[in-house]
Amino acid sequence: MAAIDVPADATASLAARDDRRHVLHSWSALDGPAPLVVTSADGAYFRDEHGKRWLDFSSQLVNANVGHQHPAMIAAIHAQAAKLCTLAPYHANEATSEAARLIAGLAPGDLDWVFFTNGGAEAVENAIRMARLHTGRYKVLSAYRSYHGATAGAITATGDPRRWASEPGAPGFVKFWGPYPYRSAFHAADEEEECARALAHLADTIMVEGVHGIAAILLETVVGANGILVPPDGYLQGVRALCDAHGIVMIADEVMAGFGRCGEWFAIDRWNVVPDLITFAKGVNSGYVPLGGVILSDAIAASFATRAYPGGLTYSGHPLACAAAVACIGIYKAENLIDRTRRLGDEIVGPALQAMQRRHPSVGDVRGLGLFWAVELVRDRDTREPLVPFNASGADNAPMAEFANACKRRGLWPFVVANRLHVVPPLVIDEQDLRDGLAIIDETLDVADRYCAA
Amino acid sequence: MAAIDVPADATASLAARDDRRHVLHSWSALDGPAPLVVTSADGAYFRDEHGKRWLDFSSQLVNANVGHQHPAMIAAIHAQAAKLCTLAPYHANEATSEAARLIAGLAPGDLDWVFFTNGGAEAVENAIRMARLHTGRYKVLSAYRSYHGATAGAITATGDPRRWASEPGAPGFVKFWGPYPYRSAFHAADEEEECARALAHLADTIMVEGVHGIAAILLETVVGANGILVPPDGYLQGVRALCDAHGIVMIADEVMAGFGRCGEWFAIDRWNVVPDLITFAKGVNSGYVPLGGVILSDAIAASFATRAYPGGLTYSGHPLACAAAVACIGIYKAENLIDRTRRLGDEIVGPALQAMQRRHPSVGDVRGLGLFWAVELVRDRDTREPLVPFNASGADNAPMAEFANACKRRGLWPFVVANRLHVVPPLVIDEQDLRDGLAIIDETLDVADRYCAA
Ligand SMILES: Cc1ncc(COP(=O)(O)O)c(C=O)c1O
Ligand SMILES: Cc1ncc(COP(=O)(O)O)c(C=O)c1O
Repeated sequence: MAAIDVPADATASLAARDDRRHVLHSWSALDGPAPLVVTSADGAYFRDEHGKRWLDFSSQLVNANVGHQHPAMIAAIHAQAAKLCTLAPYHANEATSEAARLIAGLAPGDLDWVFFTNGGAEAVENAIRMARLHTGRYKVLSAYRSYHGATAGAITATGDPRRWASEPGAPGFVKFWGPYPYRSAFHAADEEEECARALAHLADTIMVEGVHGIAAILLETVVGANGILVPPDGYLQGVRALCDAHGIVMIADEVMAGFGRCGEWFAIDRWNVVPDLITFAKGVNSGYVPLGGVILSDAIAASFATRAYPGGLTYSGHPLACAAAVACIGIYKAENLIDRTRRLGDEIVGPALQAMQRRHPSVGDVRGLGLFWAVELVRDRDTREPLVPFNASGADNAPMAEFANACKRRGLWPFVVANRLHVVPPLVIDEQDLRDGLAIIDETLDVADRYCAA
Repeated sequence: MAAIDVPADATASLAARDDRRHVLHSWSALDGPAPLVVTSADGAYFRDEHGKRWLDFSSQLVNANVGHQHPAMIAAIHAQAAKLCTLAPYHANEATSEAARLIAGLAPGDLDWVFFTNGGAEAVENAIRMARLHTGRYKVLSAYRSYHGATAGAITATGDPRRWASEPGAPGFVKFWGPYPYRSAFHAADEEEECARALAHLADTIMVEGVHGIAAILLETVVGANGILVPPDGYLQGVRALCDAHGIVMIADEVMAGFGRCGEWFAIDRWNVVPDLITFAKGVNSGYVPLGGVILSDAIAASFATRAYPGGLTYSGHPLACAAAVACIGIYKAENLIDRTRRLGDEIVGPALQAMQRRHPSVGDVRGLGLFWAVELVRDRDTREPLVPFNASGADNAPMAEFANACKRRGLWPFVVANRLHVVPPLVIDEQDLRDGLAIIDETLDVADRYCAA
């Protein structure tokens, strides 16, 4: 049977062998390349079983914001584990209460209520349910080029190829095109025009889908896995205005962009917009213990003042996960990570990547904020032909695989997706390490340049 | 605004006040009764902020199988937290590899592969996706009187009233009736007839839904939240045979019934049936860190040997959660909890509840195995009229609320749902504590008896 033909390397470690024999990894084939066995980690570094030390420029899946094995995180997990690990969601406890108060305190406007989940997909699922019940409407609008998770509702809302294998999905989802100045769906000449046209497109979509059927507009404040697409100034304000005009719930998915990644507590703070619901996960506790959730406005919470909210999960408000959130928020504050992240983006990463764009013909576009940047690779800057085709795999994807491997040979663990490198290191990364990592990228871009038209 | 009118008791603790002001609890209204603030826990007991000690006869949400704050669990969490808390699912590490090997080793037949999730709903979502991709078919059959979780796919598969508010749900789900001898959907006279008729009904459902469109039959091996419905001998074998005959994937949802609760590693072991997929969560690590997953047969895993499995989540294979699973499985073995649970069910709980049934007219039915028992309360044993109507709430549900409160006044935390008490204490419960708890139930049943026809 094919599944058992996974190469069994007798000299491999027990961890490596057990992994090959028993673990089906996310988004992977069993016969794919053997994963790295990671044995330890510290700050912006992790180490594999062969003793190789890696500079983590991916923060794992853009979650390890306070870096690996932060002493204050470990101390908090130790203390909470010794006190109370697990508790049913119908009880209360100090850690969960405090996490909720802190998160509500950080969230903009009157977003005062927290419903906890284990991760991002469940947060999105519950936000959708809340929007539907609050409005009494059903349709959910979400963007092409988005990722919202892999459960049935979240994957249907997702606007990237990961959705395809799960189609037909849940009913009631409609896609629209968001702003993406570098590859405008609207033939816009500049950011301002892109903003205006993207809003006109959204307004038109609402019109033709029927205002009175639309429960929510769900969008990533800054699109993450699909390209770190920073919305033009005015876009999110425009979405807010459309939602207000039509009684539509605005859901900001901040699973990746929130909790410091963009140099703001929530990415949406950058534009002073107050959504109705925020979904979060990852950075809330840097993934040390699985946690996600939804932050609700008072108005939406009021819908569940006397009517029981009809959703839940066994580990909602998990004490250990919430204690890790309390510690993580404490670290963001104590180490001033929000401001630091904004500064590192403005002063180091942005300028460095822009300099690379000038030097390397393969760099078509550079965009981002905080420690959330994308370098979009092309074969030709004029035509903007991507270095690899949309949704490439195998031989088609060889140039990007080669680029990723070249980063790895230099000890840098990159976040590579489609024709892009995302620069998303832990927010605590040492300045010198950040510069060193960027220098590695600069060097490695020569590999991509070779594919460029002369 | 209604949501803000939650009583703010100035004398309440900070944890209680923060909870009332900022936490939306699972399946709850904000203005509902204030939850208990739990401050510590130990074995089968937990303590609230007023110093009251509670005997936990619910294992929280039937997850704390090794009890609260087991020293070996805390030690393992401490050790793993000090070593490596978080890791992307595309890497490997010792804790995850070992957990996968142990789980695959315990699972029946050739169920050799593990896909990890954060909880039960995500496990069910992924099992459904696997079955669809493996078969190339779409429909999923699941039972009325079942619970599978609250994400869009899992809640649509769910056969209890918690589904209603999320309807219309995802497409492709069909419900059938499972065996329930006490309230037979098939007018069966005894268990054997119930089994035969339930299988005939399932075969008919397959026939009229169209064999070639059915990807999976999803069922709880022993139905949990919907009544601890132990299938008659022969039923699961019959389901297996129908799946084999028609190329349908058999998914055993063991989120609640698995990992010792039924006095077996997996409940399905009791009937020597090998399903194609098993979903698990809860008992795998007693909920100390959120964890769930799917165990795949070699044949289904082979579908993802070279084709990437198109599903995933940020915290799949989370090291801290997996280390807790390794420790928990170690405790089951070291303390011989599987056999102990079977014995406690056979020798103590079953006989005690059956004796109560003889004494109390309100006890209509008693059923279960291991430490997984239901006491079904009725107004009249002859008509079997339930103590409260189906899906009762408010005044309609008063008799059950009164019964639950009477248990609580006696220091026992009960698992009460619909017209039933579920007896589901931690598997490590001290024998004397178990007897004491049962004695409290016996005493408290007088409250229910008062509603019975004279
Ligand atoms: C914006 C966004 N939403 C939702 C998710 C899903 O989160 P999870 O993987 O924790 O289910 C992700 C994961 O990357 C994400 O980036
Ligand atoms: C049989 C069964 N499946 C799935 C679930 C959902 O699990 P979770 O609450 O972890 O999402 C539950 C929860 O009680 C369950 O009992």
